[in-house]
Amino acid sequence: MPYGVWMYSLLSRRRRPAWKWARTTPLWASLLVALMMGLDAVADEGMWLFSAPPVDRIEADHGIRLTPQWLEHVRLSSVRFSSGGSGSFVSADGLVLTNHHVGADAIQKLGDASRDLLKDGFLAATVADELRCHDLELNVLVSIEDVTDRVQAAVPEAMADDEAVIARRAAMADIEKASLAATGLRSDVVTLWQGGGYHLYRSKKYTDVRLVFAPEQQIAFFGGDADNFEFPRYNLDVCFFRAYEEGRPARVGHHLAWATQPVAAGDVVFVSGHPGHTDRGATVAELASLRDRRLPLDLRILNRLEATIGAYATRGPEERRQATQDLHGVENGRKARSGVLAGLLDPRIMAAKRKAEMLLRAELDGGTTGRSSPFLRIEEAQRAIDAVAERHRLLEGAAGFNSDFFRTARTILRAVEEGAKPNGLRLREYRDSNRESLLHQLFSKKPVYDGFETVKLADSLTFLATTLGGDDPLVVRVLDGLPPAERAAGLVAGTELGKRPDESGRRDVRRELYDGGQAAIEASTDPMLALARLVDGESRRLRTIVESADEVKKQAHAEIARARFSRDGLAVYPDATFTLRLSYGVVTGGTQAGVSYPAITTYRGLFARADEKRETPPFDLPARWRAARDRLASDAAFLDSPFNFACTADIIGGNSGSPVVNSDGELVGVIFDGNIDSLVLDVAYDDERARAVAVAASGIRAALDCVYAARSLVDKTVTRPATAR
Amino acid sequence: MPYGVWMYSLLSRRRRPAWKWARTTPLWASLLVALMMGLDAVADEGMWLFSAPPVDRIEADHGIRLTPQWLEHVRLSSVRFSSGGSGSFVSADGLVLTNHHVGADAIQKLGDASRDLLKDGFLAATVADELRCHDLELNVLVSIEDVTDRVQAAVPEAMADDEAVIARRAAMADIEKASLAATGLRSDVVTLWQGGGYHLYRSKKYTDVRLVFAPEQQIAFFGGDADNFEFPRYNLDVCFFRAYEEGRPARVGHHLAWATQPVAAGDVVFVSGHPGHTDRGATVAELASLRDRRLPLDLRILNRLEATIGAYATRGPEERRQATQDLHGVENGRKARSGVLAGLLDPRIMAAKRKAEMLLRAELDGGTTGRSSPFLRIEEAQRAIDAVAERHRLLEGAAGFNSDFFRTARTILRAVEEGAKPNGLRLREYRDSNRESLLHQLFSKKPVYDGFETVKLADSLTFLATTLGGDDPLVVRVLDGLPPAERAAGLVAGTELGKRPDESGRRDVRRELYDGGQAAIEASTDPMLALARLVDGESRRLRTIVESADEVKKQAHAEIARARFSRDGLAVYPDATFTLRLSYGVVTGGTQAGVSYPAITTYRGLFARADEKRETPPFDLPARWRAARDRLASDAAFLDSPFNFACTADIIGGNSGSPVVNSDGELVGVIFDGNIDSLVLDVAYDDERARAVAVAASGIRAALDCVYAARSLVDKTVTRPATAR
Repeated sequence: MPYGVWMYSLLSRRRRPAWKWARTTPLWASLLVALMMGLDAVADEGMWLFSAPPVDRIEADHGIRLTPQWLEHVRLSSVRFSSGGSGSFVSADGLVLTNHHVGADAIQKLGDASRDLLKDGFLAATVADELRCHDLELNVLVSIEDVTDRVQAAVPEAMADDEAVIARRAAMADIEKASLAATGLRSDVVTLWQGGGYHLYRSKKYTDVRLVFAPEQQIAFFGGDADNFEFPRYNLDVCFFRAYEEGRPARVGHHLAWATQPVAAGDVVFVSGHPGHTDRGATVAELASLRDRRLPLDLRILNRLEATIGAYATRGPEERRQATQDLHGVENGRKARSGVLAGLLDPRIMAAKRKAEMLLRAELDGGTTGRSSPFLRIEEAQRAIDAVAERHRLLEGAAGFNSDFFRTARTILRAVEEGAKPNGLRLREYRDSNRESLLHQLFSKKPVYDGFETVKLADSLTFLATTLGGDDPLVVRVLDGLPPAERAAGLVAGTELGKRPDESGRRDVRRELYDGGQAAIEASTDPMLALARLVDGESRRLRTIVESADEVKKQAHAEIARARFSRDGLAVYPDATFTLRLSYGVVTGGTQAGVSYPAITTYRGLFARADEKRETPPFDLPARWRAARDRLASDAAFLDSPFNFACTADIIGGNSGSPVVNSDGELVGVIFDGNIDSLVLDVAYDDERARAVAVAASGIRAALDCVYAARSLVDKTVTRPATAR
Repeated sequence: MPYGVWMYSLLSRRRRPAWKWARTTPLWASLLVALMMGLDAVADEGMWLFSAPPVDRIEADHGIRLTPQWLEHVRLSSVRFSSGGSGSFVSADGLVLTNHHVGADAIQKLGDASRDLLKDGFLAATVADELRCHDLELNVLVSIEDVTDRVQAAVPEAMADDEAVIARRAAMADIEKASLAATGLRSDVVTLWQGGGYHLYRSKKYTDVRLVFAPEQQIAFFGGDADNFEFPRYNLDVCFFRAYEEGRPARVGHHLAWATQPVAAGDVVFVSGHPGHTDRGATVAELASLRDRRLPLDLRILNRLEATIGAYATRGPEERRQATQDLHGVENGRKARSGVLAGLLDPRIMAAKRKAEMLLRAELDGGTTGRSSPFLRIEEAQRAIDAVAERHRLLEGAAGFNSDFFRTARTILRAVEEGAKPNGLRLREYRDSNRESLLHQLFSKKPVYDGFETVKLADSLTFLATTLGGDDPLVVRVLDGLPPAERAAGLVAGTELGKRPDESGRRDVRRELYDGGQAAIEASTDPMLALARLVDGESRRLRTIVESADEVKKQAHAEIARARFSRDGLAVYPDATFTLRLSYGVVTGGTQAGVSYPAITTYRGLFARADEKRETPPFDLPARWRAARDRLASDAAFLDSPFNFACTADIIGGNSGSPVVNSDGELVGVIFDGNIDSLVLDVAYDDERARAVAVAASGIRAALDCVYAARSLVDKTVTRPATAR
């Protein structure tokens, strides 16, 4: 798809000979320059498609020419976590390295009241001891095919918006179904450039995934929420899973070898991972809505959740075990969104966006007003979305029914209802090609805790009632004459959906209902299913409104993208979409609030940080690390081994767990975070202050070797198999 | 003021011979009965004025006749904390007993980076070691005078609303000023019955208050947010201050003697304190607004603050010390408001309120519609308030400028501006009779932390911008071209208002500006003062709108109250207004979620609770208590001494620290909380499930004696002075 997102800088190929941190230009100035004049202030920008990597540009800027073999090896060694995150194969027998925080959800679900794997960590003594995860799915990208023409052909220009939604959905579902039938691979048509292009991504899927090693969360997330999105950092934010096939460790054709040399300041590095979502191609109207509506609503929901879950976690050690992972997720989301919001609330950034759009509009549509301008159509569609956004989030987004039980009930309800329709007419997540993944989630045997579910549901019912008003007819029907807490307790106590079927011989009611179809649904007296049915009509109605407006936006964005491409002829990457992308940058420190920081931290720095904070949580060390500290007090090789490092690669949430490789395609680190200034990357790239943050591969090996006596794991993974490169 | 709040039950004098906990009637049923039929299901209801105590009713129900001497003794032993809370004199030389959480704000301000008095506790070895608080003010109620006729006479019926606001305010200010001049006592005209009555309260004021003893916060608030508003409880939530006059311990005429017998289940007890606010007399329209608007907005603000302050506190031990008390306050506010909201979201409670109002309206105004119905006038006024409520809260409520520096700037700005006007025309808080208290706060030398202020200000500026929209003209002017965090940092770094004058010889710019008047204000370049000036016009405009609507409500409520009184002729207490009230009830346990709990807990129970929770915070014991536990392991007298107890007295926030006395006027405990079901007391009384929660006097003595070796304090306070009773 060789055309670009129109809003950010045009990327020049002029070589930047040196990394200049002496520059004192502030963020806004560099952004302004980038946005207004198309200079190369943003040198290492880009989350590039593997089907269109900027090999010339990288060679021009960094003197490294990536080969097709290099790209294929890195791509086929990269792994997508369905739970949201990235990883890589690091052994021929399916060992997968990712972040602890990417694996944490799966790890949490493997624990119980007697075993807190998040807190205490885990190391499988033998392959037989590896723990099978409840609902994790891994994907490896096998091929990319441009299907833009086929998708667009299904939607003639004159078609009404609501018909267009269905026609486009049907075209995508058909392509996917045919691909799945032909190849047996997971097949997803991905919307790129906000609707400017459509690619078919085929992936090999692994659903039997087992936990091999996890450190204590306290070292994986040392510094907690306080240090999250900061640098310098000292986090062993890694864990190892293994992909299985037919009950045996998977034999994988590609995996990354561990680099023999540790990472060093000035190194050029590459990141292969799955950035989740960016808004760089959004129009000013969309950004204003993001700033004034969506992000504030997100934060309102997250702040509530943080208070509610935080309070639940203080009830006792078992409640804390149940809630910790959710709490970290919420804190992380709050901090991430606050960072994006801070960028959008920077009047200089918005002014630059506005000016750039004005110039572009003058060029593209001669400043046309009315229906003919795609910008105005987007603005209008955004208003239509905004008008129902809160209600849509409460119902269709289930922010008013925050319970696994509710989500299960609705999935069953809809799976049955949608299953009766032709593939192309269904809501997208119920398409045939997605069925296996959907059922893997739906029938998960993960533990669900009634007490915790009740608290979350009561809180979200309260949010529903206060947002819509206590006298709103839907609220009245939902609460059914009870206050939210009582209603929630009744629903959770009464439902049988998602209760673990393996407990005391309980039937799996989920499967019975799914298999029993419409008749079984209608015969059911499950209160949560009844609630899902009660709100489903209104919920679908709101979804249709939003999807129709989104269709308008897609068509308008496609128009803008086409016009832009015919003008510039540049290959520019699309906004992030949780598909595999290649980023690159230089390992380097920087300055924050006038204080400079180094590119790389060490274990010596970890211990100094713990001392500085008097080991007050979240800066306390796990017992094993206190012992290691004493034992290794004079082991300079350990103490000085690189632990975490910063680089300028262009990443965003979803890149967590991404392998960082050198020009030889060897593993030098694992991305786990960005600094606080990187959060603005959602809307515009910056290399002055924004940094991607990674765990150094050498630091991981030192920890496995010296602290966890897990040398076998290291040895296994350092052997470079014959198949690589 | 012998008429009643019309919305809750009529109080019968029929004797309830026994305390019947065997009853299984749920809360809603008892409320319904109370609201609909006027039966005595709510036996010990009432936050009674000391000028109109229900002595006959108490005698009829409990066989105890309170004498005027008893009432005077208890009243003059009672103390109001200006920071919001209650207490009592417990020695002739001015020792004041209150809750730790009432004193915590003052205690926090006495600490610094090298001394954490909240965490570690404090005991003055001698009187000379007592620590003077920065800005605490104590008040003792000396007299009550009904001035309703004088206030109402100032507002003729035909007067326009905005003129009426000014006329009423002027009448009140004049009465207060004359009273202060005549008596030298703090004089406040208090609005009762939502405008149905006006009383002049005269108080003796103490502004030199010193800290004598505080336990570790971890035992004062054992169980933290998790156990807050719960029972059974195990909290030593007490601390001791001393009132001073002319640099010496105050000689007070009345103080409470410690009861010689510990409290026991079935005891009738009395609570003398300052309940802050209830909404029992609110109309359905007002309650719906509270439910759908005010409380959700409160919670949105509190949830944000909890996340922001919580995140700041995790940065390190010093940040935690600075923020802990604010964080507890926010958590407490969140849980309290959630409880009230839960009551209002109970469709049964609202239905009962609605039906009761309908009946009353039919009786009072024959169901009149239009301007002539006070109910409709209240509804209309409420709508006017709702229309500006968010903006009002952001500006006039300063929710958009959450910083001590901003509040100081605005106070100076307005004090000068208002000071130039006649007393009666000023905004109420700047009236002459309040000047001394205002300046005591304004010139406080309490520490203010730049880092913490910056974080809070940045967060609230973000809240302002997202609530009004990033392109709102006022937002644009407030942010002055910068993103919120940068703007906040600049304001905090740039202001000199409220920085401690005693640091490195810094001038006290606050006093210079205040003394310098308008000219000094205009010459100032302080950026925070400039911000306060920038928003003050709009802020005042919004305040005027709200106050005019409030005036309409006051007149309408007065009409309802008059009509009701002429019908019922009952003496009923007004809603809580942070003035001294008398409540009473029975020491008793109860049941929650089907589980029964005892009336009284012990130290043995404390240790069992800590064990049950494996001492996971917030259930950990301070080191001193771990040692005491070992030392006193076989001391049954200590282990079994009553620690906390529950009773049915009608209390609400502001009652914290209230003395609980027996029929002899002796101290048997100190109120520190209500259980979770007590939160609904904001809108309706309940004695089935709601409980007030107190620290037992005997438990306090046991702790001082056995754990803190502070027997001298106990001995001193147990001596009963000749002046009492």
